[in-house]
Amino acid sequence: MEKKAIFAGSFDPFTAGHEHIVRRALCLFDRIIIGVGYNIKKKGFLTTENRVRLIRDVFRGEPRVSAEAYEGLTADFCRRRGVKILLRGLRSVDDFESDRTIDAVNKRLDPEIETFYLFTDPHLGAISSAVVKELYVHGADTARFLPRGIDLKEYL
Amino acid sequence: MEKKAIFAGSFDPFTAGHEHIVRRALCLFDRIIIGVGYNIKKKGFLTTENRVRLIRDVFRGEPRVSAEAYEGLTADFCRRRGVKILLRGLRSVDDFESDRTIDAVNKRLDPEIETFYLFTDPHLGAISSAVVKELYVHGADTARFLPRGIDLKEYL
Amino acid sequence: MEKKAIFAGSFDPFTAGHEHIVRRALCLFDRIIIGVGYNIKKKGFLTTENRVRLIRDVFRGEPRVSAEAYEGLTADFCRRRGVKILLRGLRSVDDFESDRTIDAVNKRLDPEIETFYLFTDPHLGAISSAVVKELYVHGADTARFLPRGIDLKEYL
Amino acid sequence: MEKKAIFAGSFDPFTAGHEHIVRRALCLFDRIIIGVGYNIKKKGFLTTENRVRLIRDVFRGEPRVSAEAYEGLTADFCRRRGVKILLRGLRSVDDFESDRTIDAVNKRLDPEIETFYLFTDPHLGAISSAVVKELYVHGADTARFLPRGIDLKEYL
Amino acid sequence: MEKKAIFAGSFDPFTAGHEHIVRRALCLFDRIIIGVGYNIKKKGFLTTENRVRLIRDVFRGEPRVSAEAYEGLTADFCRRRGVKILLRGLRSVDDFESDRTIDAVNKRLDPEIETFYLFTDPHLGAISSAVVKELYVHGADTARFLPRGIDLKEYL
Amino acid sequence: MEKKAIFAGSFDPFTAGHEHIVRRALCLFDRIIIGVGYNIKKKGFLTTENRVRLIRDVFRGEPRVSAEAYEGLTADFCRRRGVKILLRGLRSVDDFESDRTIDAVNKRLDPEIETFYLFTDPHLGAISSAVVKELYVHGADTARFLPRGIDLKEYL
Repeated sequence: MEKKAIFAGSFDPFTAGHEHIVRRALCLFDRIIIGVGYNIKKKGFLTTENRVRLIRDVFRGEPRVSAEAYEGLTADFCRRRGVKILLRGLRSVDDFESDRTIDAVNKRLDPEIETFYLFTDPHLGAISSAVVKELYVHGADTARFLPRGIDLKEYL
Repeated sequence: MEKKAIFAGSFDPFTAGHEHIVRRALCLFDRIIIGVGYNIKKKGFLTTENRVRLIRDVFRGEPRVSAEAYEGLTADFCRRRGVKILLRGLRSVDDFESDRTIDAVNKRLDPEIETFYLFTDPHLGAISSAVVKELYVHGADTARFLPRGIDLKEYL
Repeated sequence: MEKKAIFAGSFDPFTAGHEHIVRRALCLFDRIIIGVGYNIKKKGFLTTENRVRLIRDVFRGEPRVSAEAYEGLTADFCRRRGVKILLRGLRSVDDFESDRTIDAVNKRLDPEIETFYLFTDPHLGAISSAVVKELYVHGADTARFLPRGIDLKEYL
Repeated sequence: MEKKAIFAGSFDPFTAGHEHIVRRALCLFDRIIIGVGYNIKKKGFLTTENRVRLIRDVFRGEPRVSAEAYEGLTADFCRRRGVKILLRGLRSVDDFESDRTIDAVNKRLDPEIETFYLFTDPHLGAISSAVVKELYVHGADTARFLPRGIDLKEYL
Repeated sequence: MEKKAIFAGSFDPFTAGHEHIVRRALCLFDRIIIGVGYNIKKKGFLTTENRVRLIRDVFRGEPRVSAEAYEGLTADFCRRRGVKILLRGLRSVDDFESDRTIDAVNKRLDPEIETFYLFTDPHLGAISSAVVKELYVHGADTARFLPRGIDLKEYL
Repeated sequence: MEKKAIFAGSFDPFTAGHEHIVRRALCLFDRIIIGVGYNIKKKGFLTTENRVRLIRDVFRGEPRVSAEAYEGLTADFCRRRGVKILLRGLRSVDDFESDRTIDAVNKRLDPEIETFYLFTDPHLGAISSAVVKELYVHGADTARFLPRGIDLKEYL
């Protein structure tokens, strides 16, 4: 049976850290759907369309990975896609507590959902969407925080 | 392709918390090998043989789960079994840091090994082998900390 | 002598987790005043009046628990009520650090104030006012995150 | 009704930090029983008798505080004394996780036991029985880590 | 060779905790530049000019300490000043994770930058700019959270 | 004035992580004394003499770094060497709490001692003396956990 997982987040933008989690998880999953969660009331850094486009550009040539946007609760998105497994990266103790809460909330909404975690590689631990935005705003080079070949300006 | 994982630990003894991780992970893995790590120089609470026997009794009737003992490094055990995926439960922030270290050491020994984590269910978070031993020594009832139907006295 | 405590928070809204802390603390305290802190400059999810009303509905029939709103510092509210003891729930390591700071600030403002903590029950650890709001906004069922019998719509 | 609590620990030795927790808690409890847990198989730094004697010397003139030794589980000691409330100090995030486990284990053994925590005062946070022992062994002055007037040599 | 460090932050306002870190670090550094980072798009509690003025008033008579404002990334400010060493205070586990991230980001921007940390004194751990603002807004006395002799009203 | 620091630890053995802290700190300190603390009652993995020899071999050709053994409290060793500054590496949240305690104890023993910390580089975070010993015992290659050119067998 095909093993599918959803990798959900706001990915605003998708970073080299996110990419690394997905590539490592491909040793286990046959298919990974990257779900770009958005909130119609909040304006992001990138538009939802551009966030999805950026991810598709990263995984061009990797048919096991797809990307799409969703609104609302992750548990509902899982249900609509018929997927029971979530994939997440864990960077730090701070992530730990907030992820444990999200995990427990998802379980209360749908007891069959299981979330599998990978620890972020130590040398990528400092990379986050927030850091990329901060650097971009101050005119710093963001290339080494983004997937190889991605130029943020093309998605703004 | 069959998805296999190794769930490694000293399991002295295997608890209701360990069992829960394995049963939840069966939604993803086709086969789980429970590796009972032992140290020939250290005397455990249960003998290695009895630790393995207890686990086999728990999963009697579940052909996807097997148990066996191993000496030495977990990375070497993975190599001998031809398995690249480790499964672990994460209970607390304390686990987080020690697991992150083990994870990074395994990666240095074999960069292809990936460890997937599940958060322990909150109501099982207090259960550990150390707690079971402590309670047993003081004559307290250990049944609700062990897999259903397991009587610790039969393995001592 | 009557043992009184103040359980202070914004309670926007009061959750099943908050309720559980109060009910458990009644084994020790003769009277618990639930103080609903508000900020006249910030618009909440529920109005202050409705937050107080919700709590009163939860503890209808429990004369030892009362609820009232207060503006400003918790230490000032304690002084006005002549109460020196605060009660709080601790959910996670994240709570730990911020609560330790609040505790130390209160001590600097009034060295006689003592705060007593209860650990949140593990199966309620994922419940917070923020989670309830998030679920409500997305149309999810919030009943199992709220005190039994409370329908959030009646307080909006 | 008299409010009683048990303050349990190995207290080997009882420190200025322990004393401070007890004195602060007297604003709430009418009576505090300090339970000195011992393990007949482990040799301590001080004998159980001397640990109890030291604590009694500290609280000479404070009739609300008593000290006694107990063997076995704290939950059993509570049952024998007819006390349902435990008092503990929380020093650090490390304490947090281990205390949360102890708390949950106690709850499984006796669901009526409630543990109330006080944060250790920041300037006493570095004080622990282990630190006192370490300093004593190296001939350092331990007076400022012990309750006022206590000379460790009289209890060895 | 003169040992210089930059102590960077938003210092809105500079607290007794910040002052203590700088004074302690003077046992090692010959010169400390306090860099007041500001964001032209965000309105602070104090203006940037007043934040700098407050710090200069604190260190009047201490020629080894100077203060100036900077916009943008700290790594760029270090480069402009020709300083490779950053100084920071660590208060809590929460600081730990966010500081580790900042540290790693700075290293990626300029591998020669090294950040040296001092633990905040325990009795100053509860002091932060956010706490000072909160207390001020509620009319509480902020004097004991600020450097000796500083009256916040003179900088508003 | 010459800036000196003591880098104290048991260094059993000194790892690539320890070496990296010392080399980075040389951007600030004119001289670093590596103090190998030992306990005459505890048998180590390496003898004290060999631990010192290993460190001297690592820093052969670097006259600013020296190594020597000491017994007893680090604060006493600092006093004997006339050095007021300690240097330490911080790896994880676990280090954080235990280091904060050591720091506070040192301050109580000698208020003039200041400890400056560097965060361990993320890719070296998993390296510790305990891990090196564990790997060695199981016959794994320890070279990439040790300073370049060090063969552990020559020091056993």
